Amino acid sequence: MSSKRVKVAVVGGTGYTGVECLRLLVNHPNVEIVVVTSRSEAGQPVSDMYPNLRGHLDLAFSEPTVEILAAADVVFFATPNGTAMKMVPALLEAGMRVIDLAADFRIKDIALWQQWYGMEHACPELVEEAVYGLPEVNREATRTARLVANPGCYPTACQLGFLPLIENGLAATDSLIADVKSGVSGAGRQASVGTLLCEVTESMRAYAVDGHRHLPEVKQGLAIAARGEVSLTFVPHLTPMIRGIHATLYANVNDHGADLQALYEARYKDEPFVDVLPEGTLPETRSVKGSNMCRIGLVRPQGQDVVVVLSVIDNLVKGAAGQALHNMNIMFGLDERSGLNSVALMP
Amino acid sequence: MSSKRVKVAVVGGTGYTGVECLRLLVNHPNVEIVVVTSRSEAGQPVSDMYPNLRGHLDLAFSEPTVEILAAADVVFFATPNGTAMKMVPALLEAGMRVIDLAADFRIKDIALWQQWYGMEHACPELVEEAVYGLPEVNREATRTARLVANPGCYPTACQLGFLPLIENGLAATDSLIADVKSGVSGAGRQASVGTLLCEVTESMRAYAVDGHRHLPEVKQGLAIAARGEVSLTFVPHLTPMIRGIHATLYANVNDHGADLQALYEARYKDEPFVDVLPEGTLPETRSVKGSNMCRIGLVRPQGQDVVVVLSVIDNLVKGAAGQALHNMNIMFGLDERSGLNSVALMP
Amino acid sequence: MSSKRVKVAVVGGTGYTGVECLRLLVNHPNVEIVVVTSRSEAGQPVSDMYPNLRGHLDLAFSEPTVEILAAADVVFFATPNGTAMKMVPALLEAGMRVIDLAADFRIKDIALWQQWYGMEHACPELVEEAVYGLPEVNREATRTARLVANPGCYPTACQLGFLPLIENGLAATDSLIADVKSGVSGAGRQASVGTLLCEVTESMRAYAVDGHRHLPEVKQGLAIAARGEVSLTFVPHLTPMIRGIHATLYANVNDHGADLQALYEARYKDEPFVDVLPEGTLPETRSVKGSNMCRIGLVRPQGQDVVVVLSVIDNLVKGAAGQALHNMNIMFGLDERSGLNSVALMP
Amino acid sequence: MSSKRVKVAVVGGTGYTGVECLRLLVNHPNVEIVVVTSRSEAGQPVSDMYPNLRGHLDLAFSEPTVEILAAADVVFFATPNGTAMKMVPALLEAGMRVIDLAADFRIKDIALWQQWYGMEHACPELVEEAVYGLPEVNREATRTARLVANPGCYPTACQLGFLPLIENGLAATDSLIADVKSGVSGAGRQASVGTLLCEVTESMRAYAVDGHRHLPEVKQGLAIAARGEVSLTFVPHLTPMIRGIHATLYANVNDHGADLQALYEARYKDEPFVDVLPEGTLPETRSVKGSNMCRIGLVRPQGQDVVVVLSVIDNLVKGAAGQALHNMNIMFGLDERSGLNSVALMP
Repeated sequence: MSSKRVKVAVVGGTGYTGVECLRLLVNHPNVEIVVVTSRSEAGQPVSDMYPNLRGHLDLAFSEPTVEILAAADVVFFATPNGTAMKMVPALLEAGMRVIDLAADFRIKDIALWQQWYGMEHACPELVEEAVYGLPEVNREATRTARLVANPGCYPTACQLGFLPLIENGLAATDSLIADVKSGVSGAGRQASVGTLLCEVTESMRAYAVDGHRHLPEVKQGLAIAARGEVSLTFVPHLTPMIRGIHATLYANVNDHGADLQALYEARYKDEPFVDVLPEGTLPETRSVKGSNMCRIGLVRPQGQDVVVVLSVIDNLVKGAAGQALHNMNIMFGLDERSGLNSVALMP
Repeated sequence: MSSKRVKVAVVGGTGYTGVECLRLLVNHPNVEIVVVTSRSEAGQPVSDMYPNLRGHLDLAFSEPTVEILAAADVVFFATPNGTAMKMVPALLEAGMRVIDLAADFRIKDIALWQQWYGMEHACPELVEEAVYGLPEVNREATRTARLVANPGCYPTACQLGFLPLIENGLAATDSLIADVKSGVSGAGRQASVGTLLCEVTESMRAYAVDGHRHLPEVKQGLAIAARGEVSLTFVPHLTPMIRGIHATLYANVNDHGADLQALYEARYKDEPFVDVLPEGTLPETRSVKGSNMCRIGLVRPQGQDVVVVLSVIDNLVKGAAGQALHNMNIMFGLDERSGLNSVALMP
Repeated sequence: MSSKRVKVAVVGGTGYTGVECLRLLVNHPNVEIVVVTSRSEAGQPVSDMYPNLRGHLDLAFSEPTVEILAAADVVFFATPNGTAMKMVPALLEAGMRVIDLAADFRIKDIALWQQWYGMEHACPELVEEAVYGLPEVNREATRTARLVANPGCYPTACQLGFLPLIENGLAATDSLIADVKSGVSGAGRQASVGTLLCEVTESMRAYAVDGHRHLPEVKQGLAIAARGEVSLTFVPHLTPMIRGIHATLYANVNDHGADLQALYEARYKDEPFVDVLPEGTLPETRSVKGSNMCRIGLVRPQGQDVVVVLSVIDNLVKGAAGQALHNMNIMFGLDERSGLNSVALMP
Repeated sequence: MSSKRVKVAVVGGTGYTGVECLRLLVNHPNVEIVVVTSRSEAGQPVSDMYPNLRGHLDLAFSEPTVEILAAADVVFFATPNGTAMKMVPALLEAGMRVIDLAADFRIKDIALWQQWYGMEHACPELVEEAVYGLPEVNREATRTARLVANPGCYPTACQLGFLPLIENGLAATDSLIADVKSGVSGAGRQASVGTLLCEVTESMRAYAVDGHRHLPEVKQGLAIAARGEVSLTFVPHLTPMIRGIHATLYANVNDHGADLQALYEARYKDEPFVDVLPEGTLPETRSVKGSNMCRIGLVRPQGQDVVVVLSVIDNLVKGAAGQALHNMNIMFGLDERSGLNSVALMP
């Protein structure tokens, strides 16, 4: 086991992605958490807010200043969209590396980003440099990255599900459909009527059907793989559970003789966090609850031209905090599995 | 209010559709429940098994014999597939009318039925006569029917969602997709590991992707509307809640100028149990929990060619027991809303 | 069926008890809803906020003014504590009758009320007149009441469970324990982190152990029955479900030979909404979900001196809106069961 | 880190406690899993049944024979009651050590055990030797034990909550009450109607009020601490969640001046898996979900004589598999925290 120690700061430690970073980082053998910030909770012990961390983390929340964050080798931003971009230039200049778990650096087309996120970008000059941190695509670039844009939860599940098809030109890219279902933790920890237990449990509903911010992110990733534009219908649903994304992906297959199962297995055989299930096996989100794994199943119903790809992740782990640790492991030359070997909680 | 009294028997009163029939029937102003059968529980008071019926129903389970059932004007079969077909010929001959909530009489093509249900049909000669009891399509034939095949839960949600498009030739029928999500009560009340709380709560999964028995039923209904074959990809999902179906339907629109919202509103304006939501409003399953309503929302994301239709029902009501009562109301000339006016439980 | 029509106004129609009043009132055969108020939503159709009411209620929210409310015979207050007391004097003066579902008129001891509710009472002179609307205790006084204080949810379940023991002097009143569990809807529909699905589902916790506002209310009711002070330890718990209260009550029995089962059955034999289960049968909250029933079971474990009483209600129905309708039925000489005959949703 | 390797066999690897043992053992740094048995699934890869173990455990189920188990240093029995006692004599004779997660060796009074478990004990001569594996009580005896009786889930939560009071003679032992709430996983993975999602979600109910098998186990432990008989009323409840036990314990305090908070903190200050929360803080079960921690809060409501102790554990971890690993760590001289340092999943 490497004896290297990486000093980590987490900005925005009070939200669900923040505490999930902490849950994973406290047991990472090569990490020392040096700072956790929260403007509103500065001074309060972190474990007062999150009692699961009692005995694991003995830090109080700090103010998020460059001076305080300078104690870290790498800064995780687990903040709302639009926060990281205001601090990143100063942090990079001060020599730190940054992993942004929000969306500030995910979209290369600045105008498109501004349209979907409804604000002006504070440091457009850094967007090009930022590495889109989907390790299964950008592992090499990540090793030396100063700034990693950690992918969104839906985009992680959708891209991993579609990529082998698209990279190999095996699917029609003008009629892709992603019917995606998410647990409620994806909506964050803000006080809001819409995510009260009494409003969302024992119910299912679609939302943002006319346009969700993750749509341009998925399209960007698929377009790179396809080397050309793709058309995607993307319908998210709110599912009555805490964690989990189930992406049900539909594509029309071009080459009817292709062995898609073998193709998927080959594409991901060296990936530590993508598990292609045996033929005929369908994934369930609980099989990745609390873990960094993405599990994928494939079916071509009745041997028709439509292939259905089922891709499941834990939105807070592979879709957020776990993928951020994975990126950190790559950036700092650590074992990629370090801190990420826990088994999904089942049942 | 009509003073007519219909005498009703429920065969198979111990399952979820059976008790749901009873829940609705006990408050129907024109119904007298005369017999509830269960071979395994014969002699036991019904309300011992279902305490919600205490004070509402003072009957014990009976054996399911033709003699005992002869006390009824109409017999509801809330039995496993393959049960009703064995008794229906004798009941019809004895002058009773029958509503089968299972699948025995839903598929007109006997060979196709036998292939999907894995058994020989016991009375194929009655299949042609049976009226497929989707009131929004077959109301007139139902009035005089001796035998009604009550539709399946998924087929109800899918057909009501697709019909206005298909009937008007506005969608490509060679690439329909139905991504459907169901609560766990659809799996019934059998002891089984797969539907234990610990196996299905806090999780989401697809099942029967390669072929679900409701697929041929939906295709039959859509083919009639289309006056020709349709191609449909149908992917069911098990959702961690008791009740509710959320059908997310995808179709390619032929006529880009069509006012689909107006079309749907017109199609269903006189239907008591189909509610087309205002433009931009998306349905949630809890808005129909315990009620016989189907609520439908329509979106054409970013104005593209794909229309997304969202159709929600309570699988035990509009998808089973409530629709059976609706059919009974039609068969016996009662107010169609009778016994079905309760408001969904929300929250 | 009586052809009498009672004109009802609901003040505060946007919270969970408000919409539950509406759910029940729209199907009450002797009720016309004339006004629903909400200061914040005035002008908006009620069914836009609660789509389950679409097709059942065609009213928009109004401002809560005495002039507007004057259209009603009776006004239901489904408002936060401290709201009703500001309007009630004017409404009574204008000849209306009032049912307050909040706590303003429940506690006869004004100082005690002010201590627990942390505000000054706006019309202490009306507290004495107000009838505490537990029909099983105060039916006669309710018939002619101008002002009914509808009991709290926990107090309803606890009093109905303890009363037969206490009224008959069969239990030690110096060591009563109520371990009570409530669904999350008891916390209302306010935006709040503490009742987000992700904070409360898949978890169980006690709260307000050091003192809950329902404690003095329960003690007042039991003291009246005991004709003397009682000592009660009252521990509420937040349970991961929408609806339901399960009160587990512990008392030391004085008379070891008493037939408690017979005593409970006799006490409630004429009560339409209290169901004493057969000996050995334990209630579950789902058996009253959506219904106005209270179901009670009794056990004396291993024949010891401690009797355990299990009392379940739906907190939004028998613990709030349903009990309010019951009181209205009594006040206006209607059949007590009117509008309250629906069967619990099970499953 | 110790380089010692303990070879572990798990008998009965298909139930919830079995798979939970595997989930924890695969990441234990000093463990090698050598055998997992299941008579019914022999030959099938373990990870086919539990996909969360894919990539973590590459073993197939074996038949449970002494010869096959002889590869292990220690055998975990995660079997139904009555199974371990049939194999344990042969295993001990063959030199293995045994941890029984079922109840076969928990009760010292053989007649009492036979009365509650309804079978004859197969090796009563070993019951006296067996160490009751509550480490907070029997750590020393466990170090050298050949046979450990791992405590039940309710008994763990109840004893840890009551012990400081009882050991110090601070509570009346003739009127103890334990109102305990458990998630559904406590009922195991057997196909059964009673634990179907549709039967238990959105509901709360007590069960086995007249007598639960964990009652004599708790009483035995408390009697040892009290050096005399204790009287306990014990009421278990089924709570709609997968994991978690919340014990709400009531006791009458003898010494009104005692500083109970300080007493509890002192009692457990060196215990790695008992966390006494700061005064005024109440535990929630999710704060221990997936972890081996027991968290305890104390309240004396309104300063009265009754103390309310709130004790929460994860029934599958501290209440079963985690405690078994803790016992194994003690038996083999490993760091007690080894393999048990994961943080509860929150949210």
